[in-house]
Amino acid sequence: MANTQGKIITCKAAVAWGPKEPLVIQDICVDPPQKMEVRVKILYSSICHTDLGAWNGVNEAERAFPRILGHEAVGMVESVGEGVKDVKEGDYVIPIFNGECCECRVCKKEESNLCERYHVDPMKRVMVSDGGTRFSTTTTKEGGLSKSQPIYHFLNTSTFTEYTVLDSACVVKIDPNAPLKHMSLLSCGVSTGVGAVWNIAKVKEGTTTAVFGLGSVGLAVAEGARARGASRIIGVDANPSKFETGKLMGVTDFINPKDLTKSTHKIIQDITRGGVDYSFECTGNVDVLREAFLSTHTGWGSTVLVGIYPTPRTLPLHPMEFFDGRTITGSVFGGFKPKSQLPNFVQQCMKGVVKLEPFITNELPFEKINDAFQLLRDGKSLRCLLQISKFLKK
Amino acid sequence: MANTQGKIITCKAAVAWGPKEPLVIQDICVDPPQKMEVRVKILYSSICHTDLGAWNGVNEAERAFPRILGHEAVGMVESVGEGVKDVKEGDYVIPIFNGECCECRVCKKEESNLCERYHVDPMKRVMVSDGGTRFSTTTTKEGGLSKSQPIYHFLNTSTFTEYTVLDSACVVKIDPNAPLKHMSLLSCGVSTGVGAVWNIAKVKEGTTTAVFGLGSVGLAVAEGARARGASRIIGVDANPSKFETGKLMGVTDFINPKDLTKSTHKIIQDITRGGVDYSFECTGNVDVLREAFLSTHTGWGSTVLVGIYPTPRTLPLHPMEFFDGRTITGSVFGGFKPKSQLPNFVQQCMKGVVKLEPFITNELPFEKINDAFQLLRDGKSLRCLLQISKFLKK
Repeated sequence: MANTQGKIITCKAAVAWGPKEPLVIQDICVDPPQKMEVRVKILYSSICHTDLGAWNGVNEAERAFPRILGHEAVGMVESVGEGVKDVKEGDYVIPIFNGECCECRVCKKEESNLCERYHVDPMKRVMVSDGGTRFSTTTTKEGGLSKSQPIYHFLNTSTFTEYTVLDSACVVKIDPNAPLKHMSLLSCGVSTGVGAVWNIAKVKEGTTTAVFGLGSVGLAVAEGARARGASRIIGVDANPSKFETGKLMGVTDFINPKDLTKSTHKIIQDITRGGVDYSFECTGNVDVLREAFLSTHTGWGSTVLVGIYPTPRTLPLHPMEFFDGRTITGSVFGGFKPKSQLPNFVQQCMKGVVKLEPFITNELPFEKINDAFQLLRDGKSLRCLLQISKFLKK
Repeated sequence: MANTQGKIITCKAAVAWGPKEPLVIQDICVDPPQKMEVRVKILYSSICHTDLGAWNGVNEAERAFPRILGHEAVGMVESVGEGVKDVKEGDYVIPIFNGECCECRVCKKEESNLCERYHVDPMKRVMVSDGGTRFSTTTTKEGGLSKSQPIYHFLNTSTFTEYTVLDSACVVKIDPNAPLKHMSLLSCGVSTGVGAVWNIAKVKEGTTTAVFGLGSVGLAVAEGARARGASRIIGVDANPSKFETGKLMGVTDFINPKDLTKSTHKIIQDITRGGVDYSFECTGNVDVLREAFLSTHTGWGSTVLVGIYPTPRTLPLHPMEFFDGRTITGSVFGGFKPKSQLPNFVQQCMKGVVKLEPFITNELPFEKINDAFQLLRDGKSLRCLLQISKFLKK
């Protein structure tokens, strides 16, 4: 049993104190896990655009400071609260921002991964059980550090810290032999992209796809389509440097909208005899969404929304345009039910069905987290992996 | 062989000469069918809101006068053009505005009923083969009537005439023992509604549905859901007189939005523990569409668009609203592939799986067609059946 069990842990975390302010690496206090909660030592964490969005504080309603961001990671269970049965101290786990309680009406249905209790919620900043936080700033007192100001949680996870506390619904045990660094990617980006292809669009062998936006998620879409045997994977991005990386993930054709004299959807219709079978919108731009929609074939074209849309604009589509037989579907975490489905996805990654290596373009120590943010903002990294805690693998 | 075969037929038709002008019952000339065309004696025709829309001439691009409207009917083959194999003189048939050539790439795919060559096209007004019309006005000359001004076709069909010419792709042979009057309903309205439930939403037994707009198509949706064993069918309409009829088609709950102090979708969410499994939008109003979308349950709710939207407004939905796991799909002719699937649907109707009787609320002779239009405009009829030609059933 960890000698920290039941005790407050003092550790390093990167705390966001205000919109766009550099994160501060500082000591924090992490409370023990309460009933049905798990305290996890974070080994690696990577950075996703959703972290950038929360840090920028674009959406006022979602702002909460001080806060520990981060939701893509891999770690080891330090201790568990009362009632937690499916993970124990020492288990390797990945935190999941979109949990699965396995008991609610939705968890018991095949059709959805939006657990009634622990589904993703950008407004949420505290734990469900008591409405409190498990993080706080420290104050130096006689006899050592003690708790002071509460620090908010983020996306059910908060992984830019050596220790975090999560609802057990948001913790998935993984094979201890899995390559740990890569597993961080399954915590959000790669699962979101591959799952959109496998679980939402259900792309079939020999079909054609178009991917709008070749960031990590878009490239994971391409990789998922490649793994499913898509005959053509058209990548669309205004940054030509994404094209070389795209080839590694099976992208067969590249379109840079800036090079075109007509609209992207017209070009795609031209080169695919009327349009692709599936398109994936990974940019979060509503005008690109319209292009993605129209680039699919009438009659059966399916567009999956994967991007996040920080805009007040509604869909620039006319209802009659749906009568051409095209469909739009949203997807959260690629439709994966995390506890039920992710362990098998881990196995498939270990077998090489999906290649994870090319997604990690940078590695930095935890102290360099602000540099890692900058790399992502500059479009210079797909995933920058931060080593959060030193550890010995069993 | 009909003694009219290969000859021009002079007969009565109801000709639309301009927007909102009363239809004129007059003699017209109907040419013989050309290659892969069929000339049909129309026995009964019913009137659908799409006929009203074209007659009103709301959409300028779709206007074409003089024109023979009508697309919901049942008839008997008078003669066939070269190459027509699947129907012959004397066969009972229903005209279909959304044809099936059985040969194109789309017809060979399971996923869509939008035939590349004969799918519904509101802009189309002439025959495909030669770009001409088969209808013309008559001029009295020595020795009888002769052809004069061309009259346009409508929706691949034109059924407000004793004789019409159709592409054979738009003609479906039916069981000669089927109740002919009822078969007219399968030509558009009832198939559109029932098919949206069976083929598009694929409603399962024990599920919950909401139907927005209880015209013929909306009531056919209800009837289709009843036939599939839906446990709850919520009908939404501002006209309370629709409610009694709705009960005949399985509607279990009625909501009149005019009676509410909160939005319809909130009420539906309240009474169904979070929303229905499926909703069907049959009004063509984009604000109602939003209500229909939000009245489904997050995670798996599916909204099927059935109404026609004569508005420049785009969808009043934010892209992020799709991340709640709801889906929107359009449907044309209820997703039925007419030649492949309708004969079986006819059989099911003959067995009473779907009841057709309650949809025919009025019957009038052909000459009273303008009165029939008025009944529909006033919301006083579901389907008014016009007896177009006198005939002897075999």
